[in-house]
Amino acid sequence: MRIALAQLNYIIGDFDLNTAKIIETIEKCKQQNAELVVFAELSVCGYPPRDFLEFDDFIEKSYHAINTIAAHCTGIAAIVGAPSRNPDSKGKNLFNSAWLLADGKVQYMAHKALLPTYDIFDEYRYFEPNRLFECISYKGVKIALTICEDIWNLNPDPLYITNPMDVLALQNPDIMINIAASPFTYGQQETRLEILRTNTSRYNLPLVYVNQVGAQTELLFDGNSSAIGSDGTIITCCKDFMEDVVFVDFDPIGKALTSESPHQSANKNKTSLIYSALIMGIKDYFGKMGFTKAILGLSGGIDSAVTLALAAEALGNENVYAVLLPSKFSSGHSIDDAIALAKNLDCKHDIISIKDGYNSILGSLGHFFNALPFNVAEENIQARVRAVLLMALANKFGYILLNTSNKSEAAVGYGTLYGDMCGGISVLGDVYKTEVYELANYINRNGEIIPINSIVKPPSAELRPGQKDSDSLPDYEILDKILFNYIELRQSPANMINAGFDEATVKRVLRMVNMNEWKRHQTPPILRVSPKAFGQGRRMPIVGRYLS
Amino acid sequence: MRIALAQLNYIIGDFDLNTAKIIETIEKCKQQNAELVVFAELSVCGYPPRDFLEFDDFIEKSYHAINTIAAHCTGIAAIVGAPSRNPDSKGKNLFNSAWLLADGKVQYMAHKALLPTYDIFDEYRYFEPNRLFECISYKGVKIALTICEDIWNLNPDPLYITNPMDVLALQNPDIMINIAASPFTYGQQETRLEILRTNTSRYNLPLVYVNQVGAQTELLFDGNSSAIGSDGTIITCCKDFMEDVVFVDFDPIGKALTSESPHQSANKNKTSLIYSALIMGIKDYFGKMGFTKAILGLSGGIDSAVTLALAAEALGNENVYAVLLPSKFSSGHSIDDAIALAKNLDCKHDIISIKDGYNSILGSLGHFFNALPFNVAEENIQARVRAVLLMALANKFGYILLNTSNKSEAAVGYGTLYGDMCGGISVLGDVYKTEVYELANYINRNGEIIPINSIVKPPSAELRPGQKDSDSLPDYEILDKILFNYIELRQSPANMINAGFDEATVKRVLRMVNMNEWKRHQTPPILRVSPKAFGQGRRMPIVGRYLS
Repeated sequence: MRIALAQLNYIIGDFDLNTAKIIETIEKCKQQNAELVVFAELSVCGYPPRDFLEFDDFIEKSYHAINTIAAHCTGIAAIVGAPSRNPDSKGKNLFNSAWLLADGKVQYMAHKALLPTYDIFDEYRYFEPNRLFECISYKGVKIALTICEDIWNLNPDPLYITNPMDVLALQNPDIMINIAASPFTYGQQETRLEILRTNTSRYNLPLVYVNQVGAQTELLFDGNSSAIGSDGTIITCCKDFMEDVVFVDFDPIGKALTSESPHQSANKNKTSLIYSALIMGIKDYFGKMGFTKAILGLSGGIDSAVTLALAAEALGNENVYAVLLPSKFSSGHSIDDAIALAKNLDCKHDIISIKDGYNSILGSLGHFFNALPFNVAEENIQARVRAVLLMALANKFGYILLNTSNKSEAAVGYGTLYGDMCGGISVLGDVYKTEVYELANYINRNGEIIPINSIVKPPSAELRPGQKDSDSLPDYEILDKILFNYIELRQSPANMINAGFDEATVKRVLRMVNMNEWKRHQTPPILRVSPKAFGQGRRMPIVGRYLS
Repeated sequence: MRIALAQLNYIIGDFDLNTAKIIETIEKCKQQNAELVVFAELSVCGYPPRDFLEFDDFIEKSYHAINTIAAHCTGIAAIVGAPSRNPDSKGKNLFNSAWLLADGKVQYMAHKALLPTYDIFDEYRYFEPNRLFECISYKGVKIALTICEDIWNLNPDPLYITNPMDVLALQNPDIMINIAASPFTYGQQETRLEILRTNTSRYNLPLVYVNQVGAQTELLFDGNSSAIGSDGTIITCCKDFMEDVVFVDFDPIGKALTSESPHQSANKNKTSLIYSALIMGIKDYFGKMGFTKAILGLSGGIDSAVTLALAAEALGNENVYAVLLPSKFSSGHSIDDAIALAKNLDCKHDIISIKDGYNSILGSLGHFFNALPFNVAEENIQARVRAVLLMALANKFGYILLNTSNKSEAAVGYGTLYGDMCGGISVLGDVYKTEVYELANYINRNGEIIPINSIVKPPSAELRPGQKDSDSLPDYEILDKILFNYIELRQSPANMINAGFDEATVKRVLRMVNMNEWKRHQTPPILRVSPKAFGQGRRMPIVGRYLS
């Protein structure tokens, strides 16, 4: 049996577009003599549909789309993902289902049993877990059909009390098919392959795994759909970060998968993966929202430099507008570095001094501020006047403002709300400062794009004379390790102090993280590349006193 | 058996404070000869602890607090709520448990079975559902002990496939005790009483129900803890919106509850409930964050007027600072109305013209804006210059900015991000414009506080000459109904059109709601008073195309 792995990029709720894409792919696969084409989890509506699932009308539209797609499944079968209504009055109203379409109609549905409800996942919010497991037969091939998380429960400390494949395996299937919506993190491709291989080995069966690709606001899906032999060999694999369709031939007698385009292993490291993911994230945010042009404030520092380079690559240099907004505290080299970068990238750029705006705001407040000393209030006015100028240009000319904050700053609240924390999307909000440097070096891998001076100079917000980040923060090498231990690993202060970190530093950093939940609550969505990003995957109380 | 219903206001993660409060209450109840004192769900850590539950250290602190509290349970027993570790390696690591403490130690734990994971709830994110049900005995009384949602699954279309009380009832308990963290909405007290009575009637047992009280950022807990006889009579009830402890005497022979302070039914309507809830919300946000002073921009319109009146009541008029920020488009009567209100409330107020700031920003952009016509860019500059001024005063003098947007505006995106959408907390973001008027009239119930002119004049943002809300929005009477149908009831456009709403208006409004998810993503937390508030209880894709 010839099986196609169809890795497509969907738009959530755009049933017309998703249906058209799926049908077009089915038709193409028919021409390639495929007998079964497999699409991703919730492919019909796009993943994650979130609370759209609570609208009856949305579910109705999804059923309608399924019927439209089924009508094209003649001479070929398709497996698509979509919600289905739970016929039982008890339990939640929906299942997360894989639908087998053939002979012009729905033949079978398999429902998801293990519903991830951690980090960015909310599936138990919407779906009833499946409790009945049955293999399906198509053209004499017995398929164990599961959905994403269903095959991920093989840890020694498992999150769920059941394993769907354990039940299905008792029915002697010929092959496993898993449809997924498994988002990217920089370690996910490795983890995913390990999980797929744990399954092929445990059940001694080949596995066809189809993931969606593309960005859904902050969630980045790398695809990486693969066919794995029962011995764990990668038979073939879709390209990552783009739409791709690959074919495998399945021999049910030998339970063997073969491919005409065998898998070539590529050399990927953490930084190159993050780079590709962010490029896709920017591209899809703009493309799916119907935007084309980005604007950002270019300071001469490393964060805005990396953001500009990524945006120019994602959107085209002609669609990115860099604005330099110097104050009296901006150093000459910052302006030079910013201009050099804009020239290297051949991006439109302008210089608008914030001096008049800043002085005018201070003038209006002079009577109230009186002779009080310069402090964070004046620092924030500078950042906020910049935001007013950038947003005015954005509003006037249809640009979308890119946020340039990094994860280290976002963590400790080192940024001005309604100032440099503004933007439609945060490009680097899940990238620690030390990782931003790695990205900068990666961007310069074939020659200097980001001026070396932006990389080597000590980081500074330049909001008062001679200011440096290290005046108020630990060195980023230390800071980022403490943040990683706290945010990604959920370590206690005692853990870290025992591991050799300075007690006062640890406590100060953790206190800053907790105290700044209110700021992060009001920031743009953050392109997610780590296993624990700020945003919907990290839900902390704003009013709370833990560790403070 | 004398039972105390202890309705307290906790701070999430503040184990020292919560433990001290609980112990102090246990000691007081001992003096009142109580034999059992019942606290709310997760009272030891405060509800909802959210992702703090993922920190081992947090769980460890909670266990330590339980032991400290247990040591005080001599001559009296207490039921408290706290997470407990799941001893089984399979399934999630925690239970949401009710702990019976007596004779100085932990005697028993009952785990929650039904884990709400809808709207603002995320419990399956953290907890394994209980599957083993057993009544507990204390001093010869057999207690069916459950937690919040466990007794809420009695609809004809139940959300869960099991009913814990159905199982416990088979063991012939004498009384039901339910510990809860049930947040306020304007209809919740009625719904809650109905559910409690459905239980007393179905199981023919009396019920002691203890809820927490107080605000946890956006979530408002009204308390309303009650003891209900098996015939559905309210035996006694804690005061709402404040800490309260009441006592009931339970006769296990007759299975009868009696109280020395019998319940007096109060006259509450939707508007008075919302008023009380918002007052508590503001008070606790400031109190628990350690803030005392609020600032807001006072326009002369109804939204900022109601916000100011609420804040003055919650924080004291001496702690609220109203700033008038007129532009050349502000009408004279707006300034007069704003001053009249500030004087009625005896609040500090100042006038700062935005003229200089606005002109200076426009001046800096003149070269770029050239002779392009005045549009939303200039409108937004005004709103953003106001925000810069208010935030500067807030930063300089330690005020917290109150957001004054209402739910109708937030829904359709009629507001300036980083402008009037700024603030630490949104007071009216879950109150539709038509309900804001009801609040204004309620505030004026004993005499004019909010100038009548602010109530009767047509609403306007005053960002261009002669502007009125009705220029770009349907009348609020119509708009609010469409919004309610879409947001609260999740109706489809077809539903509404069939019900007689104008098709073009419905489609335009729904499109505005969906298009503005990105704006709402960056707004402050919103005090929640309705069954469907913007924020954590409504999780919509930002990039998506449903209904658009």
